[in-house]
Amino acid sequence: MPLGDHRYGKSDIRVVKLERGPERHELRDLTVRVMLEGEYDAVHTDGDNTGLVATDTMRNVVYALAAERTLDSLPDFARALVDHFLAHPSVTGALAHISAHPWQRLPGDEAHAWQRGTGGTRIEEVRADPGGMGHSAGIEDLLLLRSSGSAFEGFDRDRFTTLPETDDRILATVVTARWDYAGGAGDLEAVWARVRDTLLDAFTDHHSPSVQFTLYRMGEAVVERHPEVERIHLSLPNRHHLPVDVARFGVDDRREVFHATTEPFGLIEATVERH
Amino acid sequence: MPLGDHRYGKSDIRVVKLERGPERHELRDLTVRVMLEGEYDAVHTDGDNTGLVATDTMRNVVYALAAERTLDSLPDFARALVDHFLAHPSVTGALAHISAHPWQRLPGDEAHAWQRGTGGTRIEEVRADPGGMGHSAGIEDLLLLRSSGSAFEGFDRDRFTTLPETDDRILATVVTARWDYAGGAGDLEAVWARVRDTLLDAFTDHHSPSVQFTLYRMGEAVVERHPEVERIHLSLPNRHHLPVDVARFGVDDRREVFHATTEPFGLIEATVERH
Amino acid sequence: MPLGDHRYGKSDIRVVKLERGPERHELRDLTVRVMLEGEYDAVHTDGDNTGLVATDTMRNVVYALAAERTLDSLPDFARALVDHFLAHPSVTGALAHISAHPWQRLPGDEAHAWQRGTGGTRIEEVRADPGGMGHSAGIEDLLLLRSSGSAFEGFDRDRFTTLPETDDRILATVVTARWDYAGGAGDLEAVWARVRDTLLDAFTDHHSPSVQFTLYRMGEAVVERHPEVERIHLSLPNRHHLPVDVARFGVDDRREVFHATTEPFGLIEATVERH
Amino acid sequence: MPLGDHRYGKSDIRVVKLERGPERHELRDLTVRVMLEGEYDAVHTDGDNTGLVATDTMRNVVYALAAERTLDSLPDFARALVDHFLAHPSVTGALAHISAHPWQRLPGDEAHAWQRGTGGTRIEEVRADPGGMGHSAGIEDLLLLRSSGSAFEGFDRDRFTTLPETDDRILATVVTARWDYAGGAGDLEAVWARVRDTLLDAFTDHHSPSVQFTLYRMGEAVVERHPEVERIHLSLPNRHHLPVDVARFGVDDRREVFHATTEPFGLIEATVERH
Repeated sequence: MPLGDHRYGKSDIRVVKLERGPERHELRDLTVRVMLEGEYDAVHTDGDNTGLVATDTMRNVVYALAAERTLDSLPDFARALVDHFLAHPSVTGALAHISAHPWQRLPGDEAHAWQRGTGGTRIEEVRADPGGMGHSAGIEDLLLLRSSGSAFEGFDRDRFTTLPETDDRILATVVTARWDYAGGAGDLEAVWARVRDTLLDAFTDHHSPSVQFTLYRMGEAVVERHPEVERIHLSLPNRHHLPVDVARFGVDDRREVFHATTEPFGLIEATVERH
Repeated sequence: MPLGDHRYGKSDIRVVKLERGPERHELRDLTVRVMLEGEYDAVHTDGDNTGLVATDTMRNVVYALAAERTLDSLPDFARALVDHFLAHPSVTGALAHISAHPWQRLPGDEAHAWQRGTGGTRIEEVRADPGGMGHSAGIEDLLLLRSSGSAFEGFDRDRFTTLPETDDRILATVVTARWDYAGGAGDLEAVWARVRDTLLDAFTDHHSPSVQFTLYRMGEAVVERHPEVERIHLSLPNRHHLPVDVARFGVDDRREVFHATTEPFGLIEATVERH
Repeated sequence: MPLGDHRYGKSDIRVVKLERGPERHELRDLTVRVMLEGEYDAVHTDGDNTGLVATDTMRNVVYALAAERTLDSLPDFARALVDHFLAHPSVTGALAHISAHPWQRLPGDEAHAWQRGTGGTRIEEVRADPGGMGHSAGIEDLLLLRSSGSAFEGFDRDRFTTLPETDDRILATVVTARWDYAGGAGDLEAVWARVRDTLLDAFTDHHSPSVQFTLYRMGEAVVERHPEVERIHLSLPNRHHLPVDVARFGVDDRREVFHATTEPFGLIEATVERH
Repeated sequence: MPLGDHRYGKSDIRVVKLERGPERHELRDLTVRVMLEGEYDAVHTDGDNTGLVATDTMRNVVYALAAERTLDSLPDFARALVDHFLAHPSVTGALAHISAHPWQRLPGDEAHAWQRGTGGTRIEEVRADPGGMGHSAGIEDLLLLRSSGSAFEGFDRDRFTTLPETDDRILATVVTARWDYAGGAGDLEAVWARVRDTLLDAFTDHHSPSVQFTLYRMGEAVVERHPEVERIHLSLPNRHHLPVDVARFGVDDRREVFHATTEPFGLIEATVERH
C-alpha cells in the first residue's frame, strides 16, 4: 500500500535560556517544535530504523544549540536548527517552529525578575451569613520568575533523596493569594492594586533560601504594609526549571539552559496573619 | 438521612460592562459567581421548590445590578449583590465572587480599544525542503476589543435570519496571524514587533462594517508598511458580546451591559498578499 | 492589495438532538462548524455586506436542519448542510464539520439516561494529623444526562425572574463526589466501584423536581446502601440544555433540539451524612 | 508576624505501574499528590531548612513505594505513603491523594493493550467547491497504550544522542486520524465504527519496531479492509513513558514503574493511500 507524505519530529520542547550578562540577565522562554522529512520509507514499511534521527536526539540538539549560540535573533536560531538537521544524509526537509512566551521585567529587580502577562486576575469576594459579613480579595494566575538570589540547601537527606543542593536556581511560580480585610475597612477599591504591588515587590527583595521563606516574606510584607489586611493565604507552586547538562553534547556549560516543567510541581501553602 | 451543609448558585456569569463616558469608555470584564444558603431542606428532601431562587434569576440580578449601578468599586458591587440576595426571606447566607480580567488600553485608540495581556505569543518558523528555504512569523493569543466604530448591517436575510442589524457593537477577537517573509529579507529579529504594532494600530484606525473589512484592513496595513512581508494570513474569531436586555427588569437600558460568549463563535479567515 | 483565499463561518455550534421514540430516546451530541467561500471581495475591501450570510444565520440553519431531519446518518446531515448553503447565489464553496461526542446508555434507565466516558476518575485519599487518620474517596468528571423525568417548577418568581417553569427538561451534570469512610472500615479497594454504581443508579431512579432533589437522592442512596460511608458531599453543576425555538424558522417544533451551554452554569452542593 | 497554618508537598506526580503477570499485565495510571504538615516554622521565618523533606524526595518515595508494593489496593497504597512520611521526626500530618485514570482492555490484545475512554470523538466532514464534493471522516482523542511488543532500536546515533536502545517499552499515543472516502461511496453512516475498530485492531496485531511502523500498519489495514476509504492520514504523538530507576532507592527494579510525560512529545505523521 503506497506510503504518502510523512514527517515526524519533537513537539513542545520547553527551553528557558538565561543569558547571564554582567549587569543583568536576559530571559528567553520558548516552546520549540522540530519536524523532519526524509528517506524513511523503510522505517514505515520494513521496521528498519537505519538513519532515523530519534526525536529524543532532536530535543537534545535544541538544548545544545540554545546553549552554544546567542538567542539574540530567534529567526537565526530557527535557521540554525534547520541547517543542523538538513546536514543529516537521510533528511530532505526540516522545520523549526518557535513560540516565544512574553515576560516583562519587574520594577523591583529589573535585572533578574519578571512577570508574565499583566499582573494576574483580580478577585473580590463578599460573603455573609448569620454571623456577619466578610470581605476578601485575591489574585490568581500571577506568573513570576527570579533568575538570581534563590537557593535550596540544607534540607533533609535520606535514601530517597537525589536532589542536589543548589545555591543558585531559577525560582518560578504562579501566585494564588487570598486575603481577608478587617471589618470596617473602608474604601477597598484601590487596595487591591497596592497589595498586588507589595506581592511583586516582596517576591524579589531578599535572598531566597526556599519557596517557604519567600512565601512568608510576601505574606509578612502584605500584612505589615496594609492595615486593611487581617491575614493572607498564599499558594505557591514551584514550577521547576531543571538545568540541562549540555556538557554531554560537547558544549561549554554556562548553566544558561533550562528545561521548564509543569508536572510534577512542588506546592507551598501558608497563611500569615496579624494576630 | 440527615441533610448537612448545602448551598447553590450560579457560576461563570460573564459580564462585560462598558461605561460610556463623554470622552472615553470604561471597560469592566468580569466573571461572577453567586452562591446562596437558605432554608431549603424541603427542596432537597420533598421536592418542594417554594421560595427557591432560580439560578437563572441570580444571573439576571447580576446583569440588572451591573446595569443600574456604577462599577467604580468592585467590592461595592459584590456587596450590593450580597445585600440583594440576603433580603430574600428564605436566604440565610450569600456569597458574591468576582474575577476581573485585566485589559490594557491600546495606544491607537485609548478611548475605545483594548488588548488583554501583553501582545500575544510570538511565532517564528523556518522551513526547508528540496525547493528551498522559507521563513515565516506569526502571532497567537492576541486578544483585542473595540467598543466603538463597529457595525454589522446590510447582510443577507432569509427565513433563518434572526440577527438584528446594528450600527454599534462590541468587536472582540483573538488574533492569529501568520506572515511569510520574502527571500533574502535580511535581519528579521526586529520585524516581528513592528508587524505586531501595525496589527494593533490597524485594528482601530477605521470604521468597521464587518470583521472581514477589519481583517483585510489589518492585512493590507502589514503588507503595505513592511516590505519584508510577502503575504499574511489572518484568522479572526468573532467573540460575540451580546447586549443584555435589562429593560425587562425595570432597569434603564443604556446598552452598557453585555454577555460575553465563547461558543459558538464566528470565524473569519483570509490572506492578503503583495502580488 | 490583492485579497487571497478567504472563507468564514461559525464554529463550536453545540447541538444536542433528542429523538423521542415511543420506547426510548436517541441522543446525538454534536459540535458543528460551517465554513463558506463565496464572492465576497467587496465585503472585505469596500465594506459592502450585500449577499453575506451572517454566521448567526448559519447557526440557525444548523438548528433548523437538525430539527426537521432525522440524524440517523451524520454524513447525510453534513451533506444536507453543505447543500443548503451551496444553494445561496453568493456561495461557491461550503464545508460542514461535525464532531460527535460519545455517550453510553446507563444500565438503570437504558431508554433515557446516559454517561459520557467510562465512569469518571477515581479518587482515593488518606490523611493523618495528630488527631488521627482518615480515609475518603471520590469521583470526578462523571458526565451524566437524563432526557426524561426531570422538571423545574414552583420556584420563586420576582421581577428578575424570566425562566419559564418546565415539567420536562434535560438534566445534565458533571458529578464531583467525595465521601468519608468510617474508622476501621476494612478493605476499601472494592467499595469505590460499588459507590459509583449506586451514584449512577440513584441518578435515574426517581422523578426529579430539581437538581437539589436528585443530589439528595444520590447522597441518601450511598449512605443507606454502603455502611462503610459516613457522609458524602456532592457537587452537581447544572449544564443547561436550552430548547431551541425552531418554529421561528418554519420548522415543526417537537422539542428535540437543544443548545448545550457551558457558561454560566448552576452549581448545587450538599452533604448527606449518617448522623 | 505570626505564621498560621502551613503545608507543602508535591503535586501531579504521574505514575504508571505495570504489574507483569505471567499471563497478562495489570495497568495502574495514577496522578499522586503528597502534602505534609510539620514543625517548619524556622523554614519560613529563618530560612533554616533543617529537617525539611524536599518535594523532590516525596516524588521519589512515591515511585519507590509504587515499585516495591503491589498496587492491588489504592487505599492501602495511600495509607503506606502517609505512614512513610509520618515516620519522619519533623512531620506532624500527611496527606496522600490519588487520582486513578480509567483504562479499558482492548479486544485485540486483552493482556497488554488498553484504551482510555470510549473510542474517541467521531468526526464527519463534507466539503464542496466548484471542483466537486468530498466526504471525509476521522477520529480524535483516542488514547491507546501497549505494554508489550514495542521496541526502538537501530536508530541513528551521533554526539547528541543519549536515548538508549530498548527492545521493550510502553507505547502510548493519542490517535488523530482522518480518512477520505471515494466518490459515490454509498451509505457511510456505519463505516466510521468499522474503521475505528480496524484502527484499534491494527494497533496491537504486530511487533512494533517504531511508532512509524505501527502508524503505517494501522493505515494499511484501514485502506486494505475498507474499500470506501481512498486514503488515511494518521498523526500519532508519542506519549513517552520513562522507566524510573528505582534501584537508586534500594528497591528491586522489575521495570514496572514509569513516569508518564506530556511534554515534550514525539510526533509521527503520515498518509497511506490506495493509489
